[in-house]
Amino acid sequence: MSRIVQKFGGTSVGDVERIKKVAERVKLTAAQGNQVVVVVSARAGITNELLSRARAVCKDPSEREMDMLLAVGEQETIALTAMALHDQGVDAVSFTGAMAGIQTDRAHTKARIVTIDASAVEKQLEAGKVVIVAGFQGINEEGHITTLGRGGSDLSAIALASAVKADKCEIFTDVDGVYTADPRIVGKAQKINEISYDEMLELASSGSKVMQPRSVEFAEKHGVLFEVRSSFNFNRGTVVKAEVPHMEKVVVRGVAVDKDQAKIIVSNILDKPGSAAKVFRALADANIVVDMIVQNVGRNGIANLTFTVPQGDTLKAQKSLEPVLDEIGGGHVAVHEAIAKLSVVGVGMKTHSGVAADLFKGLADASINIDLITTSEIKISVVIELDRADEAARIVHTIFGLDAE
Amino acid sequence: MSRIVQKFGGTSVGDVERIKKVAERVKLTAAQGNQVVVVVSARAGITNELLSRARAVCKDPSEREMDMLLAVGEQETIALTAMALHDQGVDAVSFTGAMAGIQTDRAHTKARIVTIDASAVEKQLEAGKVVIVAGFQGINEEGHITTLGRGGSDLSAIALASAVKADKCEIFTDVDGVYTADPRIVGKAQKINEISYDEMLELASSGSKVMQPRSVEFAEKHGVLFEVRSSFNFNRGTVVKAEVPHMEKVVVRGVAVDKDQAKIIVSNILDKPGSAAKVFRALADANIVVDMIVQNVGRNGIANLTFTVPQGDTLKAQKSLEPVLDEIGGGHVAVHEAIAKLSVVGVGMKTHSGVAADLFKGLADASINIDLITTSEIKISVVIELDRADEAARIVHTIFGLDAE
Repeated sequence: MSRIVQKFGGTSVGDVERIKKVAERVKLTAAQGNQVVVVVSARAGITNELLSRARAVCKDPSEREMDMLLAVGEQETIALTAMALHDQGVDAVSFTGAMAGIQTDRAHTKARIVTIDASAVEKQLEAGKVVIVAGFQGINEEGHITTLGRGGSDLSAIALASAVKADKCEIFTDVDGVYTADPRIVGKAQKINEISYDEMLELASSGSKVMQPRSVEFAEKHGVLFEVRSSFNFNRGTVVKAEVPHMEKVVVRGVAVDKDQAKIIVSNILDKPGSAAKVFRALADANIVVDMIVQNVGRNGIANLTFTVPQGDTLKAQKSLEPVLDEIGGGHVAVHEAIAKLSVVGVGMKTHSGVAADLFKGLADASINIDLITTSEIKISVVIELDRADEAARIVHTIFGLDAE
Repeated sequence: MSRIVQKFGGTSVGDVERIKKVAERVKLTAAQGNQVVVVVSARAGITNELLSRARAVCKDPSEREMDMLLAVGEQETIALTAMALHDQGVDAVSFTGAMAGIQTDRAHTKARIVTIDASAVEKQLEAGKVVIVAGFQGINEEGHITTLGRGGSDLSAIALASAVKADKCEIFTDVDGVYTADPRIVGKAQKINEISYDEMLELASSGSKVMQPRSVEFAEKHGVLFEVRSSFNFNRGTVVKAEVPHMEKVVVRGVAVDKDQAKIIVSNILDKPGSAAKVFRALADANIVVDMIVQNVGRNGIANLTFTVPQGDTLKAQKSLEPVLDEIGGGHVAVHEAIAKLSVVGVGMKTHSGVAADLFKGLADASINIDLITTSEIKISVVIELDRADEAARIVHTIFGLDAE
């Protein structure tokens, strides 16, 4: 007998018919003799309904009350999912995040899980029940309802899997798993059968939106093996787990394109100690995440700083830099939004040389200009012009032997 | 400084505009220097939405999961009400029933309040906050969410008022208070300024639907003074409190008409010990509440039993009696639905004689036939034909001097 955590997102529980399908799937898993914990999100759409009501009564709703409000979404789903299981003859019981013992810190709307007291969940499992837990939500030490922010239900599932020492955690979604590239861009993209946490993290941070990085980080830290798979079929998905030696045989695991970045150039600044620090302090104070950074020093002690930020933050970035410009010698801020970041990811890069050279040559052969470059142990990222990003992804996918037959 | 509990029902919080109005009213109460606990119901309509989803996934939803599902209704309202107060500059915090310490027994969908640990609520009051509590719901000793059944939010309000030792509990509704009769039937009905718990109970059980009897019983048992008043205006409502001597000056406080009763006659049964017991045991086993009972013994040891039951239960009553008929000597069951119960209620009856005589004479003068009669210390009820019930109510209202000038 195994213990399995299964997580279904908002689309998978989007209406009563979908909920019945989820129940059928859970029933199958339970019928195979497994103890099953099911983590569900709020149905797709309800969050927007609730937000619009909140905005109608309050210009600036407090985060504490927003959590109280949004938590009803999953509570509806857990009750309906338990009922759907009952209707199919499966003994099941629903738990809110608080009832499931998911203790968080006090950061409303983006709480972190501090600990999980899974004793109540385990008691029900031992009693032969399927336990349905509300994802995305928890309770803080003062007894107030908190929510975990974007991707919170994935995190709930992985943290619960760790707490109940599950043999497996399945993250059901609307895709078959993690692909070597976005199949909408690269027609020959293939599903990856297994991938290391680090590769998954680098792919996620490079624009592959399957899961939020912090869920993967949590899984890595606590050694939770999980599988990303489709709720619409029974295909095997992508198993995400700790790196094992044979993974290094594949040099490049996947190619990711991030079109949501903008490039900012701060030019004509004095090349003196502290200039760059002042720029990035100002951006950090404005809560802007800076990704790739390059500094060029020209003649006469004049330097340029180039970096990328999320496109939605460009105006905020410009504003936050204005008061700094004088301090660093005048200078000028320019924004370029027509860029994309292309990344190749693979733990094999640790032991294989020449990946960067192959990448640069492939792009050069197609006359695609490389603007910025950053590298990590298992990733190389380049900034290229937006118009040629999809073509570049297909070229690189072929170069590294990722194309499906 | 006073401590006040204010309860708003589903119509009063039916949409965002209504919630803003509730917040305005609460703000006024708080601005007068009062500590305020607000108890709210689910918005009108949401319960039916949730029930229809439940029925779509499960033929026979469990009561435990039904409570989990329905509890989201009030949770939405408390968050929105707190936000609306914030928007008006009032410091407020929302609590679910569980967070407010409302402990119940395990009877899902119709739980009874066992105790209230109001320390968390009181802490927030002392900190100067308005506390918004979800009515209708609580938590049982195993930590499962329960609901209190019909009229549960009134009960939550009155029980909280008792727990926090409130100076006053205001039950806001869509009428101005308790009337001497239903104004839709008796045009000259007047609002009652104050009424005893017992009178309120007798009026409620006689078809005046302002509040569920158990909330009034709870208030009486714990000495909670409450006022029933309109959420749409600032008129004084009806204060419900313990009986005081001057209340007896009014002989009849109100007239109630209950058109939801049916009369059942079990005729030609043997007049021997145990016959009536068997009849009422069968009805009790079928969960049918029997109201008025009369037994007539005719010649030859043959008796008739006549009683009233809620109209919705007549079929169930007939079915439950079938297996008993043979045991009690054959007999015949007849149902008459075209009846009404007219009641006059008043603590003054304890010390005034002649109320019954006046009532019977008034009806007789109008040639309205009286079918059954029951009396209690403070109430006289008669069954009359349905077609003349409204006319009878007006006549009786006049006889006992209740008409508005």
